[in-house]
Amino acid sequence: MDYEALFQAELDGLKTEGRYRIFAELERKAGNFPQAKRFDGEGGETGTQDVTVWCSNDYLGMGQHPDVLGAMHETLDRCGAGAGGTRNISGTTHSHVVLERELADLHGKQAALLFTSGYVSNWAALSTLASKLPGCVVLSDAGNHASMIEGIRHSRAKCLKWAHNDVADLDRLLASLPADVPKLVAFESVYSMDGDIAPIAEILDTCEKYGAMSYLDEVHAVGLYGPRGGGIAEREGLMDRVTVIEGTLGKAFGVMGGYIAGSHAMCDFVRSFASGFIFTTALPPALAAGATASIKHLKASSVEREAHQERVAKVRRRLNAIGIPMMDNPSHIIPVMVGDPHHCKMISDWLLDTHGIYVQPINYPTVPKGTERLRITPSPVHTDGDVDRLVSALSEIWSQCALARVSMAA
Amino acid sequence: MDYEALFQAELDGLKTEGRYRIFAELERKAGNFPQAKRFDGEGGETGTQDVTVWCSNDYLGMGQHPDVLGAMHETLDRCGAGAGGTRNISGTTHSHVVLERELADLHGKQAALLFTSGYVSNWAALSTLASKLPGCVVLSDAGNHASMIEGIRHSRAKCLKWAHNDVADLDRLLASLPADVPKLVAFESVYSMDGDIAPIAEILDTCEKYGAMSYLDEVHAVGLYGPRGGGIAEREGLMDRVTVIEGTLGKAFGVMGGYIAGSHAMCDFVRSFASGFIFTTALPPALAAGATASIKHLKASSVEREAHQERVAKVRRRLNAIGIPMMDNPSHIIPVMVGDPHHCKMISDWLLDTHGIYVQPINYPTVPKGTERLRITPSPVHTDGDVDRLVSALSEIWSQCALARVSMAA
Ligand SMILES: Cc1ncc(COP(=O)(O)O)c(C=O)c1O
Ligand SMILES: Cc1ncc(COP(=O)(O)O)c(C=O)c1O
Repeated sequence: MDYEALFQAELDGLKTEGRYRIFAELERKAGNFPQAKRFDGEGGETGTQDVTVWCSNDYLGMGQHPDVLGAMHETLDRCGAGAGGTRNISGTTHSHVVLERELADLHGKQAALLFTSGYVSNWAALSTLASKLPGCVVLSDAGNHASMIEGIRHSRAKCLKWAHNDVADLDRLLASLPADVPKLVAFESVYSMDGDIAPIAEILDTCEKYGAMSYLDEVHAVGLYGPRGGGIAEREGLMDRVTVIEGTLGKAFGVMGGYIAGSHAMCDFVRSFASGFIFTTALPPALAAGATASIKHLKASSVEREAHQERVAKVRRRLNAIGIPMMDNPSHIIPVMVGDPHHCKMISDWLLDTHGIYVQPINYPTVPKGTERLRITPSPVHTDGDVDRLVSALSEIWSQCALARVSMAA
Repeated sequence: MDYEALFQAELDGLKTEGRYRIFAELERKAGNFPQAKRFDGEGGETGTQDVTVWCSNDYLGMGQHPDVLGAMHETLDRCGAGAGGTRNISGTTHSHVVLERELADLHGKQAALLFTSGYVSNWAALSTLASKLPGCVVLSDAGNHASMIEGIRHSRAKCLKWAHNDVADLDRLLASLPADVPKLVAFESVYSMDGDIAPIAEILDTCEKYGAMSYLDEVHAVGLYGPRGGGIAEREGLMDRVTVIEGTLGKAFGVMGGYIAGSHAMCDFVRSFASGFIFTTALPPALAAGATASIKHLKASSVEREAHQERVAKVRRRLNAIGIPMMDNPSHIIPVMVGDPHHCKMISDWLLDTHGIYVQPINYPTVPKGTERLRITPSPVHTDGDVDRLVSALSEIWSQCALARVSMAA
């Protein structure tokens, strides 16, 4: 059996399809983000280039906030590097407990439970809830993130997919199920690649109508929406109606980690049974402290959220004015549509090499084939000059390659 | 549907069985580890107690090593807190690339691939290898860790379990399979709860005889064994014969994260297809830098490894002398056998409350029912005084509770 040849054949397939991924090797400059240094990928310091990052999920630049860095430095000095154990075996520190309280408070819930990432929180919580509740049926939005899909799949519970954001379809599926089976409706608030937002109130109405639990991924909304950064459900006054709110500490909060928030019993249940929570080293205390500082800051300050929305509106307006095709949406994510993996990579390479503008091409399986795009994420730390350079570079490449523009700058 | 009642009923079941887990809330004192502060779990600073940690997996105390903390502080200042993106979308930094090279070098492999934890590396790598190689059959040691089991299960590949460390059984199973199906033999070097070590050479002979890939979890061995800390396979000169070596950065290396090391094509294959690698925020650069510093130090220095083995031998000798029942093994893990979850928790509580000695009780599902234990992990930073206090406390409780002693101090 020639395993190397099997691996190579699969990789060659990706290359032919134009979706073999080459990672840009960066070094963020704290205090100077979104500026970064780009390495040539060959090791060494030679061949580095200054670039402006336009595709980070550190949406507010909190990864360089003095409160966050201060808390991390302080905790590193006081407690050391790693947690040194799983949560059960010596790995629960005061910093973890404080962060879980902070998260419960952020979402107005009784409790919260921390995981090593948002991916693991979705995977572990969904697989545990769906597999341990006898006969549970999961109703999963068709646009759900890979981490949710894998968690549901892992549970081996029956899963019904409802059309993306389609409440009537959800209602129809729920109506088809017996009243006495546990039901779990899983969806997101802001969908990360299209930037559209779920009709949360209507979805919760439907869950309540049929006695289903609701599981809401607010990964791309926490820190960014709501008066205290609790997400879209906070903004719309709906947090208390959601059974499980899931979020990440690695995007707007600028650090790393994931969590769920909900009732004491629900969190305790997942804590007690989820393999992906139990059998892994806890987050380093310094990360927990950094995340706590970030959440605390964004609970009290709306300056970053307002500046964020202003930047997003500005970039969108400017790109609209020159007819760059974008997917329209009510969030902070600007998908510039290209629709072909080779073109998409070519544009991205050109922006990077010629203009020092870094926007990673997004291709299958992250988005459906034929919807390849540049996903632009403006942040409060992008200056007017940064915006000017982005807009003129995109205009130039659109002209050079005779790419289609949108005729109406609507 | 009363979901709260369903959750509560399951939790009550755990309580009745004596295996409801209460996490000790600690705060490690960097520079002073294994000493820590214990909180009373009610918040606030009141009611804290000084304790000595005897169950950490920061086996060598690297979590407080100046090189590790220095690298983390420096990288925090230079690059900020989080990576800000997945590896593909702006989250690959120079620190990640350097760490992957360091890991490849540690194991004498062409390449290495970093994950957010050892759990995720096992889950993601095994599920990808087993599901993407057509018809792949996995042969899994019966003692494998939850993260491996879940990864194999997630792949939905056919899985055959071989009796723990039983090469004849593995041979028999491999012989039963057609020559032309891909085969993956998954096992560990040091088993974390019993501390026994796999007969790696014989297992590799058997893999080679049948053309199977080998997948070796060295999570409890990296940093600890081998002239450069490459693990048991390094110590025994076998690294080049293992297809995939998996390890963690969260135990002996003292930080957090996981990885696989192997051929370019194998790592690139997992990089390109593993959901658990692709769809999650990358490790913070500061963690990557801390791990690199730790690995570099332990590659060059054997002082910690030698002191570690000396401490382990000493604790084992002292406990043997007073007849405390231990599972015998050739590693650094000392399982003191109790065999009942209620007793185990009672002894652990008493050690903690009366003597400030923290050894978490280990119960089902981490170990089989009836083999509940105290898992003691001596480290180079435990002093002779720490050892004396541990031994006399255990002697006292064994007498008080009239627990069985081993008659022969063999
Ligand atoms: C919707 C959604 N959920 C969960 C995750 C995973 O979160 P994390 O990056 O913290 O693992 C992501 C992205 O990574 C996401 O886009
Ligand atoms: C054998 C084994 N493999 C993998 C893991 C997971 O590693 P990590 O703690 O880095 O997630 C553990 C323990 O946590 C383990 O004991």
